Amino acid sequence: MKNTELAIIGGGIAGVSSAVYAQRAGLECALFEANTIGGQLLWMETVDNYVGVDAGIRGLQLAESLKKNIQDLEIPFFPHAVKAVTPEEDSFVLTTDKGPVQTRGIVVATGARFRTLGVPGEEELTGKGVSYCAVCDGFFFRKKKVLVVGGGNTAVEEALYLAQFAGQVTLVHRRDRLRAMRSLQEKLFSQENVEILYSRTVEEIQGEGAVNGALLKHAETGENEVLPADGIFVAIGVTPVTELVRGLVDTDKGGFILTDQEMATSRTHIWSCGDCRKRPLRQLITAASEGAIAALSVYRSLRGGYISS
Amino acid sequence: MKNTELAIIGGGIAGVSSAVYAQRAGLECALFEANTIGGQLLWMETVDNYVGVDAGIRGLQLAESLKKNIQDLEIPFFPHAVKAVTPEEDSFVLTTDKGPVQTRGIVVATGARFRTLGVPGEEELTGKGVSYCAVCDGFFFRKKKVLVVGGGNTAVEEALYLAQFAGQVTLVHRRDRLRAMRSLQEKLFSQENVEILYSRTVEEIQGEGAVNGALLKHAETGENEVLPADGIFVAIGVTPVTELVRGLVDTDKGGFILTDQEMATSRTHIWSCGDCRKRPLRQLITAASEGAIAALSVYRSLRGGYISS
Repeated sequence: MKNTELAIIGGGIAGVSSAVYAQRAGLECALFEANTIGGQLLWMETVDNYVGVDAGIRGLQLAESLKKNIQDLEIPFFPHAVKAVTPEEDSFVLTTDKGPVQTRGIVVATGARFRTLGVPGEEELTGKGVSYCAVCDGFFFRKKKVLVVGGGNTAVEEALYLAQFAGQVTLVHRRDRLRAMRSLQEKLFSQENVEILYSRTVEEIQGEGAVNGALLKHAETGENEVLPADGIFVAIGVTPVTELVRGLVDTDKGGFILTDQEMATSRTHIWSCGDCRKRPLRQLITAASEGAIAALSVYRSLRGGYISS
Repeated sequence: MKNTELAIIGGGIAGVSSAVYAQRAGLECALFEANTIGGQLLWMETVDNYVGVDAGIRGLQLAESLKKNIQDLEIPFFPHAVKAVTPEEDSFVLTTDKGPVQTRGIVVATGARFRTLGVPGEEELTGKGVSYCAVCDGFFFRKKKVLVVGGGNTAVEEALYLAQFAGQVTLVHRRDRLRAMRSLQEKLFSQENVEILYSRTVEEIQGEGAVNGALLKHAETGENEVLPADGIFVAIGVTPVTELVRGLVDTDKGGFILTDQEMATSRTHIWSCGDCRKRPLRQLITAASEGAIAALSVYRSLRGGYISS
């Protein structure tokens, strides 16, 4: 059976940063990613807020840089899907699609998926006006007309965030009232450039090469209308990819892994970082930082070393 | 009086990342840095662990990227030294060398400085053989005899760096063992031109116009000895640059600013990030992440919004 000291599961920026720091700290590590290195970067048109990198870099190009980071440090990389994690006495056995791997420690960096609407036009126009993150992309919609889809806290937060610079924000919600907390709702109602359309579902996102509107359907009357828009922010939630460690580590009710500040989970020798972890700010730069912190925690725990800088 | 919503003090990577997120969040911000943008990057030969950027990038080049981040977003940048912070009822007044500035909130990202030994000869001979940065000055000691003072990671890393081209490296540590991580120690022990002197303190740095040696005292026997040397690298840690907010916010006994996970200090509307803050891992990537988190905390606090992603 293949054997390693630290298995890092997930090849997004959190996992790669963790692998870089683990390798440089002298840990014997192995990075597992069944798909291409890059995680959500693979779906990002451009990245504009990763400080130190020029704004406007393509997501794919930053993903290529992550690959180069791995290659330059000769980090052992395995394009295997990890199917199960089984705790043993002093280690864990990973069941992968290429056989079992024994490891002393695990960094879970499996990320999350944005919930999508699943309507025509959504996939094609992602990065071309369709976005899942106002903090990432809102800046491009100065004075523009944007739609936010959803009715929970995230949707209302994103609408408020966008209302600061967008010309007009329309919140589209499928129910006849919002789910968001009242204080947020009140704040939203007080915005002059925000309109709320209740009881509408988005049936289609329209545009050729760039979003120009959405087809809405009224839940009660069944009537259709086309709403012109330059951008559509889908804010109907995020699902963490944490089935692998379900029951092994504590999560919140949404399935996000709970950790302390050092990225340690409730189970000894399992750490977590990035979007699969419960965290206040879901950004590339925070994920990369958490990966580094996790790796040094592993180092301290497995090697008994100490490092402060 | 000049007026702004958010003053970010310090143009290292923490301050710049904070400015990028603040500007993109629609906050009216102003970045203050009396010197060149880049902070400690200006003293780093290369950077090898900032994931997403190719290993081996020169510190100055990464500093240039930070400048470009600021220019691209048209972040208001002021090359003014901030001399004092005075709290007013609902705001703060910054005293700068170009006049006062009123601001609602402050992000303190003033970084840290290398710690000095405080012994005779040190100050006079700084730049004449006494250095705090092997990467900056090591080149001048080709085939020469150098001392490195300290026992932590930085000291061992600096000794390893210098061993590449100096004739002889002597690590002087006041304790009977090193604090550095084991893999670094092992690497150090394997160097042929490195000697380690334990349980010695540096009492004086000697030389007229140029270092020619150090007076060492044995911690147990009390015996003195003079060790000839062409260069002395002091690697005993860093001191936060936090005089500006002394008495205004809580710090630890070392002067590092205490914050919560959202980078809020003990005083409402003052946040802190980067090396001036008490933090477990002092790295570029963690500083950049903290800058982003601080900016979104400011947004939530000053704009009453809330944003979770």
